[in-house]
Amino acid sequence: MFKGKLLHGGDYNPEQWLDCPEILEEDIRLMEEAGVNCVTLGVFSWAVLEPEEGVYDFNWLEERIDRLGEAGIQVILATPSGAMPHWLTQKYPEAMQVQENGKRNLPGKRHNFCYTSPVMREKIHALDERLSEQFGKKENVILWHISNELGGNFSDGACHCKLCQEAFRGWLKKKYKTLDNLNRAWWGRFWSHVYTDWNQVHSPAPHGEWSMTGLTVDWRRFVSEQMSDFCRSEIQAVKKYSDLPVTTNFMAFFKNLDYNRLKQEIDIISWDSYPFWHKSKDEVPEAVWASANHSLMRALKKGPFLLMESVPSAVNWREYNPLKRPGMHMLSSLQAVGHGSDSVQYFQWRKGRGAYEKFHGAVLDHLNGKNTRTFRDVAEVGERLYALTECLKGTVNVPKAAVIFDWENWWAVEDTTGPRLDLDYVECVLAHYRAFWEAGIEADLIGMDEPLDGYRLVSAPLNYMYKSGYANKVKRFVENGGLYVTTYFSGAVDDTDLCFTENHPLEDVLGIVPEEIDAPSEEFANSFSYQGREYPAVRMCAVVHPKEGTEVLSVYEKDFYAGAPVVTRNSYGEGQAFFIAAQSDMDFLRVFYRDMFQKAGLQNALGIELPYGVTITERVPQKGYKGQAAEEGVVFVMNFRHEPAELSGLGEWKDAENGEIVSSVLRMEKLSCRILTK
Amino acid sequence: MFKGKLLHGGDYNPEQWLDCPEILEEDIRLMEEAGVNCVTLGVFSWAVLEPEEGVYDFNWLEERIDRLGEAGIQVILATPSGAMPHWLTQKYPEAMQVQENGKRNLPGKRHNFCYTSPVMREKIHALDERLSEQFGKKENVILWHISNELGGNFSDGACHCKLCQEAFRGWLKKKYKTLDNLNRAWWGRFWSHVYTDWNQVHSPAPHGEWSMTGLTVDWRRFVSEQMSDFCRSEIQAVKKYSDLPVTTNFMAFFKNLDYNRLKQEIDIISWDSYPFWHKSKDEVPEAVWASANHSLMRALKKGPFLLMESVPSAVNWREYNPLKRPGMHMLSSLQAVGHGSDSVQYFQWRKGRGAYEKFHGAVLDHLNGKNTRTFRDVAEVGERLYALTECLKGTVNVPKAAVIFDWENWWAVEDTTGPRLDLDYVECVLAHYRAFWEAGIEADLIGMDEPLDGYRLVSAPLNYMYKSGYANKVKRFVENGGLYVTTYFSGAVDDTDLCFTENHPLEDVLGIVPEEIDAPSEEFANSFSYQGREYPAVRMCAVVHPKEGTEVLSVYEKDFYAGAPVVTRNSYGEGQAFFIAAQSDMDFLRVFYRDMFQKAGLQNALGIELPYGVTITERVPQKGYKGQAAEEGVVFVMNFRHEPAELSGLGEWKDAENGEIVSSVLRMEKLSCRILTK
Amino acid sequence: MFKGKLLHGGDYNPEQWLDCPEILEEDIRLMEEAGVNCVTLGVFSWAVLEPEEGVYDFNWLEERIDRLGEAGIQVILATPSGAMPHWLTQKYPEAMQVQENGKRNLPGKRHNFCYTSPVMREKIHALDERLSEQFGKKENVILWHISNELGGNFSDGACHCKLCQEAFRGWLKKKYKTLDNLNRAWWGRFWSHVYTDWNQVHSPAPHGEWSMTGLTVDWRRFVSEQMSDFCRSEIQAVKKYSDLPVTTNFMAFFKNLDYNRLKQEIDIISWDSYPFWHKSKDEVPEAVWASANHSLMRALKKGPFLLMESVPSAVNWREYNPLKRPGMHMLSSLQAVGHGSDSVQYFQWRKGRGAYEKFHGAVLDHLNGKNTRTFRDVAEVGERLYALTECLKGTVNVPKAAVIFDWENWWAVEDTTGPRLDLDYVECVLAHYRAFWEAGIEADLIGMDEPLDGYRLVSAPLNYMYKSGYANKVKRFVENGGLYVTTYFSGAVDDTDLCFTENHPLEDVLGIVPEEIDAPSEEFANSFSYQGREYPAVRMCAVVHPKEGTEVLSVYEKDFYAGAPVVTRNSYGEGQAFFIAAQSDMDFLRVFYRDMFQKAGLQNALGIELPYGVTITERVPQKGYKGQAAEEGVVFVMNFRHEPAELSGLGEWKDAENGEIVSSVLRMEKLSCRILTK
Repeated sequence: MFKGKLLHGGDYNPEQWLDCPEILEEDIRLMEEAGVNCVTLGVFSWAVLEPEEGVYDFNWLEERIDRLGEAGIQVILATPSGAMPHWLTQKYPEAMQVQENGKRNLPGKRHNFCYTSPVMREKIHALDERLSEQFGKKENVILWHISNELGGNFSDGACHCKLCQEAFRGWLKKKYKTLDNLNRAWWGRFWSHVYTDWNQVHSPAPHGEWSMTGLTVDWRRFVSEQMSDFCRSEIQAVKKYSDLPVTTNFMAFFKNLDYNRLKQEIDIISWDSYPFWHKSKDEVPEAVWASANHSLMRALKKGPFLLMESVPSAVNWREYNPLKRPGMHMLSSLQAVGHGSDSVQYFQWRKGRGAYEKFHGAVLDHLNGKNTRTFRDVAEVGERLYALTECLKGTVNVPKAAVIFDWENWWAVEDTTGPRLDLDYVECVLAHYRAFWEAGIEADLIGMDEPLDGYRLVSAPLNYMYKSGYANKVKRFVENGGLYVTTYFSGAVDDTDLCFTENHPLEDVLGIVPEEIDAPSEEFANSFSYQGREYPAVRMCAVVHPKEGTEVLSVYEKDFYAGAPVVTRNSYGEGQAFFIAAQSDMDFLRVFYRDMFQKAGLQNALGIELPYGVTITERVPQKGYKGQAAEEGVVFVMNFRHEPAELSGLGEWKDAENGEIVSSVLRMEKLSCRILTK
Repeated sequence: MFKGKLLHGGDYNPEQWLDCPEILEEDIRLMEEAGVNCVTLGVFSWAVLEPEEGVYDFNWLEERIDRLGEAGIQVILATPSGAMPHWLTQKYPEAMQVQENGKRNLPGKRHNFCYTSPVMREKIHALDERLSEQFGKKENVILWHISNELGGNFSDGACHCKLCQEAFRGWLKKKYKTLDNLNRAWWGRFWSHVYTDWNQVHSPAPHGEWSMTGLTVDWRRFVSEQMSDFCRSEIQAVKKYSDLPVTTNFMAFFKNLDYNRLKQEIDIISWDSYPFWHKSKDEVPEAVWASANHSLMRALKKGPFLLMESVPSAVNWREYNPLKRPGMHMLSSLQAVGHGSDSVQYFQWRKGRGAYEKFHGAVLDHLNGKNTRTFRDVAEVGERLYALTECLKGTVNVPKAAVIFDWENWWAVEDTTGPRLDLDYVECVLAHYRAFWEAGIEADLIGMDEPLDGYRLVSAPLNYMYKSGYANKVKRFVENGGLYVTTYFSGAVDDTDLCFTENHPLEDVLGIVPEEIDAPSEEFANSFSYQGREYPAVRMCAVVHPKEGTEVLSVYEKDFYAGAPVVTRNSYGEGQAFFIAAQSDMDFLRVFYRDMFQKAGLQNALGIELPYGVTITERVPQKGYKGQAAEEGVVFVMNFRHEPAELSGLGEWKDAENGEIVSSVLRMEKLSCRILTK
Repeated sequence: MFKGKLLHGGDYNPEQWLDCPEILEEDIRLMEEAGVNCVTLGVFSWAVLEPEEGVYDFNWLEERIDRLGEAGIQVILATPSGAMPHWLTQKYPEAMQVQENGKRNLPGKRHNFCYTSPVMREKIHALDERLSEQFGKKENVILWHISNELGGNFSDGACHCKLCQEAFRGWLKKKYKTLDNLNRAWWGRFWSHVYTDWNQVHSPAPHGEWSMTGLTVDWRRFVSEQMSDFCRSEIQAVKKYSDLPVTTNFMAFFKNLDYNRLKQEIDIISWDSYPFWHKSKDEVPEAVWASANHSLMRALKKGPFLLMESVPSAVNWREYNPLKRPGMHMLSSLQAVGHGSDSVQYFQWRKGRGAYEKFHGAVLDHLNGKNTRTFRDVAEVGERLYALTECLKGTVNVPKAAVIFDWENWWAVEDTTGPRLDLDYVECVLAHYRAFWEAGIEADLIGMDEPLDGYRLVSAPLNYMYKSGYANKVKRFVENGGLYVTTYFSGAVDDTDLCFTENHPLEDVLGIVPEEIDAPSEEFANSFSYQGREYPAVRMCAVVHPKEGTEVLSVYEKDFYAGAPVVTRNSYGEGQAFFIAAQSDMDFLRVFYRDMFQKAGLQNALGIELPYGVTITERVPQKGYKGQAAEEGVVFVMNFRHEPAELSGLGEWKDAENGEIVSSVLRMEKLSCRILTK
């Protein structure tokens, strides 16, 4: 926690209102009423901070920071590289992105810069250093916020300009040393794609190469590298005169940027959460989606993170944008905290009058001042967070299970062709994660390069690519007693998308020999029976052969591969490995993982079965926390249903907020969160 | 009326048949048989009129005009700028459009020119002046027709070349004087979009700016300005040697060009009507669509207009193109006349042998000469129009109600983001207009800048943008006894898409304070009860608070905003204002407007309830008509059903065509029109 | 047959495995086990054959050919122009294609070259000549294979570079002599599209001309011409030192290239067949599709052809890719042979480790060597083909019926606008062809320029364009006793898409006068009664008038054209012509053609009714076959159902493979083929 607080506040853009002093004054007053203790300043403010090249105007910012400080409000200070001022793009058009069609962008929008561009870096560094000098030691400035949603721009988020092509070639040279190595890694003799000069390499493009998956996956790696490098260069600038930690706001399941790479540059993970609540009366899919992202963010650095943006009412960019129903703002805010966030921050404090986000939800609307449902909802969150501060201090979630979620695998499995083109890695991971969520058993979402130590159960669905060292790590994990689950289309290729040709790398651990994969039409869907109930086998049906000693728990019931295994178990060392050969449905995954949890000795913090729509998480005092941590763990019980829920059999707990004793039965309002402690 | 005639005829392209004299001769003969009294010549004829730069060949045209004159057929003479000859695009490629992606078009298609291009203007003016000189005083030439369907070209209809960018900047300078003003109007500090040099402004582009709605709406205004300027420059050329009036053919609900701007340049409104008849057995939606466009065109200059194009059988450019069923050609022709058209003109007289429109319906097909159903249908229309001439002379429709339909609002409400992205302004306006249509109560479709005097009821659905002066005009209208209806998402922004921040500009008139707008998913659809029946509240549900004294006629029945108003009434001065908070369905609008009509003292010309599928309009002698007008009004009764209809309770009328007395009951054939008088 | 063999084998890419000698050795061994007697080498091998400009390395290829020769395996040797090496595109970027948007491609993918480019031709010819010199007389090299799937590249397959524009203009000059002729043929005065300089002509482009159908159809002709010219130029190169015949692999219903043009350059037709088996349990549509393509390929040169590519398991490029069910590989292989193929070849022998086609089915997978279902399936095919060799020697199918399938008609009818835009010519032809297939009556698919001699029944559905001479040929065909069937929207335009303006060119033969064509919506669908049963008339309903003496067999039952003919018969000379005015369904076509077959005296080889899902073909000794042909015809009976079938009433036959006598009843396994002889 920052200075012992749960942060509450959000993006604040006073530069849009500098000619309305009464608005600026009202802002401070209403922040206090709303229990806001922290705002983010400076995102997209470049044109106001540096109105002409080399001419800086920080007075308004200093005034605001000071005024906020007087009101006891902390500041997260952003570097403004998220949007380029017009004087910059006019004088240095080469600083703008080139899209994959080879066309240089025109000025406008945001995130429109080349990550390689020296002039872009030079200009933003000069400004960042000044910001660092002037504000880096301000008392109420607590954190640097680098740029905004890095990579969230045109099409693939990457720049394809000549400088980027050069940088890509340099990166490849460093990685492969020789073209021979590169040609071998990319299987270059297919379609005569042998490179004989480094300059022949070009980024993937619709009017050029897009069929060479080795190139594509390396290009994506390079893009993440280059974005991270840009971020690092800004960090160096802001740290010049400041010791404050840095963050940058991540996005939900953001494919263009490998956060396992970028996280290495920053101190604190933060992210922007925008679940699509009220798409359906069944809020569980969105709740699972949000929890999965929280779990991913928390797992990146195995510790607390910040919810940097969320919306207090409705966003403005979806096809349709429902208002948050009563209770949902509180519930989704506490969901973040329950999963390890030490903040609830909003985009945005006040709706602007014009341009793209003028109807994006905010604490303050255009009309009615504080007399709105939204304002009241926000103030309630502020109050509750304030009250929870002590009992959450120094706590964090410590799951005993993990689901593998890996960017490189994501890229590779969706870019490859066959057995089907519509594979959705995130959807698949979410289905498996949901089984954990429904049981109230927390799981980290971790990359393949992360250690597996400390987990009892690791699930690796659709784990197509085995990066170097991964198979051995899994072997050791299972040997040492771990429980490992994986599926069809796992372990097919190595780091550069070359198929394994000897054996499946985990053949011994899984105890199966894969032969072929059917991608049947709906009419040819298969089925299998598991523990006496029948489940569908659809879309992807691997045909594998069990090795001797492998236990076949279920087999296909139809078609020519009737009798081939669908679920297998193999003991290996002290542990066990399970293989699921076919895509099925949630009903199956729910039952399957119930067994896994039992075998792994995992249960949720309350030790009970949860009704549909309810999940729980637990924050426990963090090992090595510097400061006075809470003494007890706290359990967040969340009801995402539009009706009340009743949990029974949970023993005796105490409501951490009102002290009420909860004994055996816990009754919950619709869309609500209760926080319990022992 | 032109020289006392209802025009009947259409586009005639003899230049395609100059080497077939027998065809040219047959044309005249069959025109006479078809009752054709007017044709349009010269549309797209540039390459034949000026086969080489500066070399003109008008002989064929003169021959045709004279020959037509001999047969008593009048001529509308078009300038041929609708399509550029290849010698022009070859020598002056800069005269062709640049699309929004920055790419210069290649030659081909039509409408492919830059509206700013000096060379295009120079070349067409030289030709126009010659046409003016040679034909401007011909006895049977009655009207200039400028170009063709202006703006109906590639993508957004606009040119994005350097000259257009320059012109746009000049237009902005004139409008805003200073960049400060512009930055304020466009809310430029959002995303650092502050302009510090006029040259930084660029038209909206997919690879540049498209998120700045102030820029976008101004760009659209400029494009309309530039097209109008081009039109004006051609008008100057044709008027050099001629006093004839000018028109240009408009298109149905054509978004790219604000006809309220362009109408200022021309003398007579004309338009091209292509309803999609027979898409469904229920022809009402298409009939409403056509009537709405007629009403819009008529309202532009508050007077008679010309139906410039329609198809005598089927068009060729829709996914599928049904033949007009018997009766429909007559009915849709008279529908135009009934709404104020003084003509029924066709595209086209004769199908060409080749290229894009060879299968577009025409009076004459490739085969069978006049021995076709289509030719007979056309001849019948000619005969009937001829017979109606006297009783329609000097008459026009004079509605007492108006529906606001405004181009700038259209652009703004569909370009903005939130509460939902799929808003369809035309669809919404049509739903409200349909309530009038079904009741047989005529309404003008007018822009926000038009006076409201003379109307008893004004409806302004989805009236998102309040242009300067609009709110005050509405206030005065209601104060003076007018009845005003408006809906959710009205009055949100000013002329440059800046949100109002004090109050809703019509808060006092409407008697409501808006708070938030829900855009619910289908599962969360709401409902309300109105006069004892329940109606759906879907897609857009505003939550507003009634002010003291405002009468709440209906409230939401579900969800957290149950009890909030859906329909309100507020008395203001002598009048009343109604607010509809949610999108509903046709059933609701039908009932709601029935009440409005009653309150406003509006009834249709027959004073009766109409069966479904039947509508009526009335033409009355026009005030100030120069010439001998008819003495009585005439009522057009139109049955768009595929079955007979019976109207009862209508008192005594006379069939204006056969003199038959209609007493109390009027029986109508399917797809037919009866014309009654007192 | 080549050297008396039914070829079995496929694409072999040893260049991908040159550093794995054990793999190369295993290849030969397993080919022998799989009954492979022929492989295709060199497709896409340019980068390995000529690693630097002018530096050749043929050693690996020679070694492989010799090694294959030792194993008794023949070689089809491909020229490697299907993919360009990077040294070529780097040094000569002008050799790459320019797409229709005017953008030059980047290197990558395959088929990325300009067919006109002199440098591309020079480089590939130099290589081809060397190949010819070194391998053109090798004993086990039997056939040249030019390039790969010509035209199968970006978007429309055509190059739009300046050189191609020049070549197009040259081609037009040669065709039209004068611009006057061209302008007349393209109806250039429409929209002022008169060309006054040859340089004004540009290929169709989205940002230029696409509305001029005369230009478009000529452009498509030119593109076919240019591709054929490129192919011819390669043929000249390989024939420099070699007398071997040449082929190039065609694709299924490939619109971009008129195979009736390209066939003139090559000696032997071959094609790549990839039906989408198991999309549905009803395999008939795909079986019909495959048969139709086989029939098209066979008819191109009226003789045996080669199945050059097929997949032994699943492809990798469809949205989903089902495994071939047991039996289907054998059945679809024999389907090809039954329709006239003298080979069963695969793409590919062994799956590569990387890049775009690593998961494309192959005889050998990445794992498990020969221990796969796929390998066993392939080996069975090899065995069965070997056993069938003698009884198929010198045989070919000789249908007595033909369905017109013409590329120029295809282009024209789908490019024109009206009466509906979604016409699908292939779908329409397939529906008619299917009636033949279901009856087991073979039909050739032939172009309009082919002779009709020898056929008793010719069907020409959706025969929109009548090329010069076609109408007269049909007249003679019917006069001489032929039975001719055609439909709505036939005979509308001439070679350059100009509508006929006198009469329908076959008015006398068909005995009808067409008036108009309705393209009704679903709600306005019509119907007709034929032989006592009602059928739908949908999507396209021509209204025609019977001439005197024409027999009306069925009429519309609804709408204003109720009573107009749907099916007519007209006797003309010794023959009869049938006209079908409306699109109907398969039920109608089945019944209609049953009558046609009877009238034409056509029956299938077994002379019986076939159960659904079963078809038959017959190969008979070929007239003029050089060599020892089989003495008897053989009949292929194919069951495409997933259940057994029973055929009865077929008299006495002998199973050509096991000698078993089949008397009266033939029982068939699911997905199986029986081969009978007398």
